[in-house]
Amino acid sequence: MPEIILDKPWENIKDILAENDAEKLKQFLTDLSPAETARGISRLTSEEQQKLLILLNPEDAADILEEVPDTQAIDLIEDLPAQNAAAIVDEIPSDKQADLLGELDKEDAEAILREMSPEESEDVRNLLTFDPETAGGLMITEYLAYPKNIRVRDTLNDLQTNREKYADYTVQYLYVLDKKERLVGVLRMHDLLFAPDDALLHSFMIINPLKVNTDTTVDELRQFFDEHKLWGIPVVSLDGRLVGVVLPDAVNEASCKKADQQFLDSSGIVGGEEFRSMPILVRSGRRFSWLSINIILNVIAASIIAYYQDTLAAAITLAVFLPMISDMSGCSGNQAVAVSLRELTLGLIRPNELLRVIGKEVLLGLINGLALGFLLGSIAMLWKGNIYLSLVVGIALMVNTILSVILGGCLPLLLRKVKLDPALVSSPVLTTVTDMCGFFLVLSFGTLVLPKLL
Amino acid sequence: MPEIILDKPWENIKDILAENDAEKLKQFLTDLSPAETARGISRLTSEEQQKLLILLNPEDAADILEEVPDTQAIDLIEDLPAQNAAAIVDEIPSDKQADLLGELDKEDAEAILREMSPEESEDVRNLLTFDPETAGGLMITEYLAYPKNIRVRDTLNDLQTNREKYADYTVQYLYVLDKKERLVGVLRMHDLLFAPDDALLHSFMIINPLKVNTDTTVDELRQFFDEHKLWGIPVVSLDGRLVGVVLPDAVNEASCKKADQQFLDSSGIVGGEEFRSMPILVRSGRRFSWLSINIILNVIAASIIAYYQDTLAAAITLAVFLPMISDMSGCSGNQAVAVSLRELTLGLIRPNELLRVIGKEVLLGLINGLALGFLLGSIAMLWKGNIYLSLVVGIALMVNTILSVILGGCLPLLLRKVKLDPALVSSPVLTTVTDMCGFFLVLSFGTLVLPKLL
Repeated sequence: MPEIILDKPWENIKDILAENDAEKLKQFLTDLSPAETARGISRLTSEEQQKLLILLNPEDAADILEEVPDTQAIDLIEDLPAQNAAAIVDEIPSDKQADLLGELDKEDAEAILREMSPEESEDVRNLLTFDPETAGGLMITEYLAYPKNIRVRDTLNDLQTNREKYADYTVQYLYVLDKKERLVGVLRMHDLLFAPDDALLHSFMIINPLKVNTDTTVDELRQFFDEHKLWGIPVVSLDGRLVGVVLPDAVNEASCKKADQQFLDSSGIVGGEEFRSMPILVRSGRRFSWLSINIILNVIAASIIAYYQDTLAAAITLAVFLPMISDMSGCSGNQAVAVSLRELTLGLIRPNELLRVIGKEVLLGLINGLALGFLLGSIAMLWKGNIYLSLVVGIALMVNTILSVILGGCLPLLLRKVKLDPALVSSPVLTTVTDMCGFFLVLSFGTLVLPKLL
Repeated sequence: MPEIILDKPWENIKDILAENDAEKLKQFLTDLSPAETARGISRLTSEEQQKLLILLNPEDAADILEEVPDTQAIDLIEDLPAQNAAAIVDEIPSDKQADLLGELDKEDAEAILREMSPEESEDVRNLLTFDPETAGGLMITEYLAYPKNIRVRDTLNDLQTNREKYADYTVQYLYVLDKKERLVGVLRMHDLLFAPDDALLHSFMIINPLKVNTDTTVDELRQFFDEHKLWGIPVVSLDGRLVGVVLPDAVNEASCKKADQQFLDSSGIVGGEEFRSMPILVRSGRRFSWLSINIILNVIAASIIAYYQDTLAAAITLAVFLPMISDMSGCSGNQAVAVSLRELTLGLIRPNELLRVIGKEVLLGLINGLALGFLLGSIAMLWKGNIYLSLVVGIALMVNTILSVILGGCLPLLLRKVKLDPALVSSPVLTTVTDMCGFFLVLSFGTLVLPKLL
């Protein structure tokens, strides 16, 4: 069982790898937990990682790839010679193969596919045609299916004969097919226990079973499994043929991935996950790509300040409040963004329900705007004892808070409508607009009462 | 099957509820998908929601609670009279009962428990003693267990006799117990298919099965299920007695919840999820609690600007750059926070590996700091043609970027060590410190070369 980790066994990985002893390396890795393996591998250079995978036999290397997080697994095979990568990928289950190859560059994936055995590569090519966020992309192709006219006895015989092969199958149903391989019924594994030996499968199967199409989306599948507590749902092609089975696990994992991605996107980690074991230029380049857009947006926002320089020079106190207004409005707006993103994910609102969101945010903005404006106004009053200064910054923050929560609440819906990623785009757009409005409000109010501020 | 939604059937919920016709309401809700039900209920006032649950019979009301997101379900029962709530909660499976009651206020939960049937409430009280993020909190108590000395025949008889009861059980294993109810073996359901009728269970069971303790954590369970593809893992108490079974689904859901919570925390949605159907004062109050801390932190950061007012008044151009430096450093730092949070979640780093993080972030900060500093310096040069201004803002941003990524990388590790929630606390602390440093750098550099800036 998971025990408390007392030492750091993974730190020896470099030394053991240097010994070039495949057996010893394998034994060492077997003794590590998956997290320790991942941690150990993340401590190696790219060259050492390649050496490790090539030193192990393909089957053991495949086990390693299944243990570590997906992003790390992709990094690992990406750099391998195609022939070595293919030998390893050959040993991985079909749905995971498609996941890994789907994340690689087209050419890298193609090079590996060419080196794989023809049957395996055809299966994977087939799975790769589906969007990874649909039933087609999530399904496994390992399932049990029998023609509707065979008897319980023969089914049991087949199960017993092929026990070893089926032991790896995680599906708890038997699917029943007509002559054209169309799904016509389903049986639970243990229904076979209670049926007479010579019954035909179609005589006691559940007819018209629930099923989904290859293009059913992750969100639809999640709602489906929330409603129906099933061990798996069969996937049919357009012509009704059974092509795979989606397990609730796969749907959960895909939903989870979306949640993780939402968090990373909203933090400005773009172009996939970053681990600190990745090459420095990849890490800094990806982070910079997002920062460089932000600096441009900041310049646009700051242009408002430049425009009001005279006011600012005359009433320098206002400069103290500009970053505060900018930051506070960003905070308020991002709260509204987060609520909208969650409500979208959970299906509580739909992208065209802007009016509902606005209605709900206006009142909240008014309450929190009044509270925050009063707070900031009081702080200004305590500091300078000038009621005009206090009113300028207080009212500016109040108005800007209202604008921020409305914009923050609506942005994810609007972006979803135009098919942009709301988690990624909302925050930079939001802060640019709320900065501009905030600066404008403080400085234009300030200009109005400038003589009173001096 | 999930079909494309063409109209908005959930919008009729108010009208149908007003008719006071329990049958009609039930039929209406049955026709909605879970997401539509959740959406419909979120459109009702708190009073209407209560009326809806009381109008339905407890069994149907329980179905509704199972369909909607947890946070919404908790909101719904919280406001009900304890007697009505108890009747509904009685109809929910044991692990979900504990989930719901565990999230309520102590008194509310106690009031409901008192109204429940004694056996049910004892089960729930027992489950409530476990931390919801451990095996004890995640396990179900519906499992199949038999003494080791009974025969296959009797086991099959029991299975067949109690078929209906067991149909709801989602566990695919039979657990085998000794006289003291300690777990000694496990059988897969279909192992029974291939064993002779008169064999004793212990003669062909898998001995010393894998198991976890009630206090095994979600992260450990996730690593466990990554490593072992099992349908469930038995949970034993300190004395080895079997007390429940954890399903991989429950672990996935708990992990997912953590990912969602991380996103909400980092966006400043604290004290649980917010839906726009909640009362406005709850929503604004919760958001304000976080904002009010932020405004204090902002005042602290802005005090640096106040201190350097004279420099700023003399070289007003610097005021344009202050919010930019603040925002850009916040962005860079938050990227590093996100990477650290992910690496912690995935087990790639441990809280005491500060040196490794610093080593990895210093170089990245240097590269991105140089790039961003050069960019901002160039912008300043283009705008004012003053090399000193350009150097002041460029170097300040460069230095502050390095500080931000180091602090951002380390904060989650430090906060985890002192048992604070890194997703919640990192960002406010980070932006306060980087704002202070940024303002200090720009304004102190500016003071040094002040005559050249004029």
